[in-house]
Amino acid sequence: MLTPNLTVNMEGHLCIGGADTVTLAKTHGTPLYVMDENMIRENCRGYERVISEEYGGRAEKIVLHGNSKTNSELQMAVSHDVGRIVCDNLPELKRLDQIAGAAGKTVSVMLRIKPGIDAHTHDFVKTGQIDSKFGFALETGEAMQAVKAASLYPNLRLVGLHCHIGSQILDTEPFAEAARVMVRLMDQVRSELNITLPELNLGGGPGIRYTEEDDPKQFGEIVRAILSALKGICTELDFPAPFVLFEPGRSIVGGAGLTLYTVMAKKVIPNIRSYVLVDGGMCDNPRYALYHSEYEAMIANKADQPRSERVTIGGKCCESGDLIGEDMPLQSAEEDDILAVLATGAYNYSMASNYNRNPRAEIVMVRDGEARTVVKRETYADIVKNDL
Amino acid sequence: MLTPNLTVNMEGHLCIGGADTVTLAKTHGTPLYVMDENMIRENCRGYERVISEEYGGRAEKIVLHGNSKTNSELQMAVSHDVGRIVCDNLPELKRLDQIAGAAGKTVSVMLRIKPGIDAHTHDFVKTGQIDSKFGFALETGEAMQAVKAASLYPNLRLVGLHCHIGSQILDTEPFAEAARVMVRLMDQVRSELNITLPELNLGGGPGIRYTEEDDPKQFGEIVRAILSALKGICTELDFPAPFVLFEPGRSIVGGAGLTLYTVMAKKVIPNIRSYVLVDGGMCDNPRYALYHSEYEAMIANKADQPRSERVTIGGKCCESGDLIGEDMPLQSAEEDDILAVLATGAYNYSMASNYNRNPRAEIVMVRDGEARTVVKRETYADIVKNDL
Repeated sequence: MLTPNLTVNMEGHLCIGGADTVTLAKTHGTPLYVMDENMIRENCRGYERVISEEYGGRAEKIVLHGNSKTNSELQMAVSHDVGRIVCDNLPELKRLDQIAGAAGKTVSVMLRIKPGIDAHTHDFVKTGQIDSKFGFALETGEAMQAVKAASLYPNLRLVGLHCHIGSQILDTEPFAEAARVMVRLMDQVRSELNITLPELNLGGGPGIRYTEEDDPKQFGEIVRAILSALKGICTELDFPAPFVLFEPGRSIVGGAGLTLYTVMAKKVIPNIRSYVLVDGGMCDNPRYALYHSEYEAMIANKADQPRSERVTIGGKCCESGDLIGEDMPLQSAEEDDILAVLATGAYNYSMASNYNRNPRAEIVMVRDGEARTVVKRETYADIVKNDL
Repeated sequence: MLTPNLTVNMEGHLCIGGADTVTLAKTHGTPLYVMDENMIRENCRGYERVISEEYGGRAEKIVLHGNSKTNSELQMAVSHDVGRIVCDNLPELKRLDQIAGAAGKTVSVMLRIKPGIDAHTHDFVKTGQIDSKFGFALETGEAMQAVKAASLYPNLRLVGLHCHIGSQILDTEPFAEAARVMVRLMDQVRSELNITLPELNLGGGPGIRYTEEDDPKQFGEIVRAILSALKGICTELDFPAPFVLFEPGRSIVGGAGLTLYTVMAKKVIPNIRSYVLVDGGMCDNPRYALYHSEYEAMIANKADQPRSERVTIGGKCCESGDLIGEDMPLQSAEEDDILAVLATGAYNYSMASNYNRNPRAEIVMVRDGEARTVVKRETYADIVKNDL
């Protein structure tokens, strides 16, 4: 099994967090997002544990991100006293200073830096290199200029730096290298500007196991590698150990979720391929259409049978590119089977659309075999609620 | 100008349908979808006119499409007496027959055929070839088997065939060839099964002018080519002229719409590229992220100035691939400028998501210089309305 929270029960049905997915599909309908609450809690505690063992400290407040924040978003963040606003560019610093001044507040900011790290990940999700829409480049001196500028605004308090080198990263070394690069920059800021920044946000990016070929590092291993690099470089440069933040979203929720569909038809094209057509698609999971992301799937009601066929899973939307995946191993699929697409707890509901006027799917949270709805299925009335 | 409904007023502002886009952006906020009502009406009338001149006939009812329709969708279609249900696969025919029988109704169906036409279009939107999730293949005999099967179900009335060879097609010949192929199949059905099908739905696909390099055929030209081919092949085979339907969605609304954004920042990366960052992105227009679709853009408040720079337009979402386009000619952009992305009247609002919790944009319809809201901007409360 891809993740330890997946099991097969006596009826041969796939279970997640102890709940029978076939029963969930019958009870709640499909498409259905299923999230394993215990796994999410365990993942959060795991991150907390390794950090407190190796380094100490807790993030207490919200961090606002974005390379193109609007004035209304900045105003909302200032009025709600969001803990840290990670500024991406000079015009944003200027706007934020004005908004903070108008609100009579001093706002704590960090600066998003492009550390120039190649994270060996997909082009679309590689964000740490110089040719990126995100942040200030280190190599060009832009980062140092931004630190200087930020430190001069009267209503901003520059507390640290942020970087995010990419997504779905399966190695530890890019993270460790990013930590070293960032502390070196903080040391340079100390020498050149006489400013000792107390905080460092190293962003996210730890990958998960989407397919059996993926071999992601355990997050304990990643965090230990980062913290070891951090402590090493701080000692080397005699730089005071910064307060450190991580943003490990996908690695907490990705593997904790799966998506259930009903098989509507199977279409065998001799000598070419077989399509298994389901009652969802790019409207609830656009990641294959966007990035050719790979997944493991199985027939939930035949989970004890071998995945003896290779199929293309096609969605219901009006595009040939509306696929969940190609050349995927699967049990022999028939109409009304329940298809489970694994490791879809991240970037599915959040990217879902109403394309082809499909209502967005329900989310159920399972815990110890019990399920509760956490987001209701959309209705057609919901979809047209803002039409005049 | 890309389309004749776009003009520049005395203030140098871009206008659509006589309405000043800069004023629209100030009044309604950005991102904003703007649709030109007169152009949509003229396009609809244009299609009607050329068809009535060349062929005659009107489609009176709704046609339901989809390669993976759910039982509840089929039930809804049957209960509302949808005019034609275009069936995609054998399991669907069986389910529809049962649903129609349970409702005590006879349902008029067409069959979606893959005519094996190469429409010279993008892989993702090419749908007429044999390796497609849509429809019954002609070459393999599957289409003929489907006609046979459909004609035997007691609660279905097979009235004709449907094909759709792809999207954004700029030539006339693929359409004409599809018409010939489909009538040949209808002739074969007549010989082999003694069934003369009275209707032919030729789907959609006429392309629009997304960029100045695109040279789409006028729809009058496309429709005349199709109808000429159709009349020719019917005469040749002595086949009675079928009732014909077209589904020209994009060519009616695509060029009639544009999307307005506010420029939040410009990021110049020396010797690499310049990013213009706007307050929308793949959440309101995912087409560049999905297909690298190209657009023309301009600064609406500098529409009388030359587009002297080449820039990458970046959105506000948390992905490097969140771009509206790369290497696009544009006037020199500054903060607070209004950016207009042209020819975005199709597949933008319909594919929009709440990714990064961005509320979906408002749609205004303009007519003779006046604007009215047709879809309200989403609020944060709308986004969480189904959360429990």
